[in-house]
Amino acid sequence: MIKVAVLGYGTVGSGVVEVIQDNNDLICQRIGSEIEVKYILDLRDFPGDKNEHLVVHDVKTIMEDPEIDIVCETMGGAGAAYEFTKQALTAGKSVCTSNKELVEKYGPELLALARKNNCNYQFEASVGGGIPIIRPMNTSLAPECIESIKGILNGTTNYILTKMAAEGAAYEDVLKQAQDLGYAELNPEADVEGHDAGRKIAILASLMTGKTVRYEDIHLEGITGIDAVDFAFAKALNKSIKLIARADRASDGSLTAFVAPHMLGADHPLGRVDDVFNAVFVTGNMLGDIMFYGKGAGKLATASAVVSDVIELARAKMAGYALPCIWAEDKVALKPYDEIKGCFLIRVKEDEAGRLAGAVSGISEAAKVSGYVGYKIEGISEKALKEALASTGLQAKIIRME
Amino acid sequence: MIKVAVLGYGTVGSGVVEVIQDNNDLICQRIGSEIEVKYILDLRDFPGDKNEHLVVHDVKTIMEDPEIDIVCETMGGAGAAYEFTKQALTAGKSVCTSNKELVEKYGPELLALARKNNCNYQFEASVGGGIPIIRPMNTSLAPECIESIKGILNGTTNYILTKMAAEGAAYEDVLKQAQDLGYAELNPEADVEGHDAGRKIAILASLMTGKTVRYEDIHLEGITGIDAVDFAFAKALNKSIKLIARADRASDGSLTAFVAPHMLGADHPLGRVDDVFNAVFVTGNMLGDIMFYGKGAGKLATASAVVSDVIELARAKMAGYALPCIWAEDKVALKPYDEIKGCFLIRVKEDEAGRLAGAVSGISEAAKVSGYVGYKIEGISEKALKEALASTGLQAKIIRME
Repeated sequence: MIKVAVLGYGTVGSGVVEVIQDNNDLICQRIGSEIEVKYILDLRDFPGDKNEHLVVHDVKTIMEDPEIDIVCETMGGAGAAYEFTKQALTAGKSVCTSNKELVEKYGPELLALARKNNCNYQFEASVGGGIPIIRPMNTSLAPECIESIKGILNGTTNYILTKMAAEGAAYEDVLKQAQDLGYAELNPEADVEGHDAGRKIAILASLMTGKTVRYEDIHLEGITGIDAVDFAFAKALNKSIKLIARADRASDGSLTAFVAPHMLGADHPLGRVDDVFNAVFVTGNMLGDIMFYGKGAGKLATASAVVSDVIELARAKMAGYALPCIWAEDKVALKPYDEIKGCFLIRVKEDEAGRLAGAVSGISEAAKVSGYVGYKIEGISEKALKEALASTGLQAKIIRME
Repeated sequence: MIKVAVLGYGTVGSGVVEVIQDNNDLICQRIGSEIEVKYILDLRDFPGDKNEHLVVHDVKTIMEDPEIDIVCETMGGAGAAYEFTKQALTAGKSVCTSNKELVEKYGPELLALARKNNCNYQFEASVGGGIPIIRPMNTSLAPECIESIKGILNGTTNYILTKMAAEGAAYEDVLKQAQDLGYAELNPEADVEGHDAGRKIAILASLMTGKTVRYEDIHLEGITGIDAVDFAFAKALNKSIKLIARADRASDGSLTAFVAPHMLGADHPLGRVDDVFNAVFVTGNMLGDIMFYGKGAGKLATASAVVSDVIELARAKMAGYALPCIWAEDKVALKPYDEIKGCFLIRVKEDEAGRLAGAVSGISEAAKVSGYVGYKIEGISEKALKEALASTGLQAKIIRME
């Protein structure tokens, strides 16, 4: 019998208990052992909840119970969650988590602590919700030198951009709708400014390199600057606008990682990932392009990813197996995001088009929309482009194209 | 040092050697051990090939060499490949393969033989080429009761359908082009009649149930009946036509599996999988919908999937770990494919439309194209629909819609 403790009985934690209980027969078959949730740690009581009797308030009850094999940390944050995770691993209990902040900050330290104590630390649910991506990175993509990862990693912003595209609505109006529906927080900054996607691409970029890419080093550009005119251009050009979190390896081996809105062609698989769906598009040196698509958030989808870790932890525990994950503390120095060359759409008012064309070389007209002219320019860094535009004195807006 | 033998130096086998050699540094880092190809088994010699010195003609050299830990079977077929796989597993050497025919026919027997001899049998490359799907089924999706799998699992037919859609060309003309480009075999039956996709969905349906779904029991309908008028209707209805291999679990627990062309809506992620790309769309009871997308064939993509198995086999061997895969020999009885209810487009000549509307209830006009009228009907089995149409005496063509 494998016994599990769940730390935090919020949305994800209650989903984890539900998945383990409702799909128990098939999970037991697939582990080759019985499994049950023995404790739920929460500060609150849950009178009337069918699992009320499992709730404990003192983490010691869990840490000191030798029957507990696996701890699911679904509390969030990097405070108590960090302390409890270290306690569990030190006690030889394997831990899995949905907590991207904790994984981004302390991933390699916690992995090393798990190895030292002959247990495992897993974090499939920390990126992409229910989409399998962490385990495929550690196993299926292990033969690959990964050249780039591009992800739609935040459901809230993708919902907002999808609505803006479909309805031609303004950012503020769609944000309000999303808040009313519960898809966006009242303080939406973590989503709309790209912080959430930034933490997730930091984790993926770390696994891509086997070293540590820090969130603090990642340039973040959110969606608050995207307006209806951008979408009018996207429509005229048969493109979509998505918030892309990306990590790219240059031919000299240097790595770039940033989050920014991108215009994507109608034929790019990421361009068609709509609403709250997420996707991760990975390019390997042997495999070429692959994409993982699914629900990036939501109670049961995220819980399913946590329980996939529980199953792997249970199988590994019974066999004394160390699950593979290569992630050292050595920090990766990122190449500045604005020095890599790319393709951009530059938009200026129609009456300023002549001045732009005279001042910036290599541009070609892409579309005229709503009193603006859009020009495409390729093979230039954002830094060089911004310098060229600054010298014109024009109010030009740029958006990255893929 | 992990030593590998590759059986068969054809397209996939030579790709496996290339991936292991060219990405050797990072593969060694990820395994935590050196790894090299020690033997290549082939009847031919390869004078001038850089790996000429590794080629052996007698399989005994491999089977009797205690240094060989892992055998990659990339020969194809279920004759010698079956014998050699059994010999290797009996000798305690783990085996991985890209051979869908062998896996479909003998999967559970070979898995059991591996378990008996404390080694492993893996077959990531047998379905979907470079797309990670077998390992995710065994690990990431282990918490899920999988309700359905729908796949575009054959690149040749998807290339043909994509070209027919884009160019309005006839099936025979596009097939000829595909043959000239080497995308289709001179005898294209295995692809265009759905045999290849049928074997692959048999494997996925087996892993979905943990029991055995036999290829022989799967209804196969290929793409040879699809014509330009079908695509004209698809265009009028903003849909695409794809050859879908599917396995669906009904609410009574019964399973259906078949291969047939489907019209898919513009918003269905599978509808946008074009050219030689493949994708597998899985619906789980907790996770909802997820999709895996990538190259379904090709030397290096398929080889990368084989090498991902090699890496897992190497890790597991060093730890004495049995990699998870639940697939018993118990055979699953399939519910007849034409008894499950679905949605169809019925097309008749315009001058016969009145007779159809009078004879079949529940239809609604969807589009008029090229002298035909297309009607949509929902919630009916193919069997019932065909009986109703037979009673009209009309030349009606039907196509399944999703």
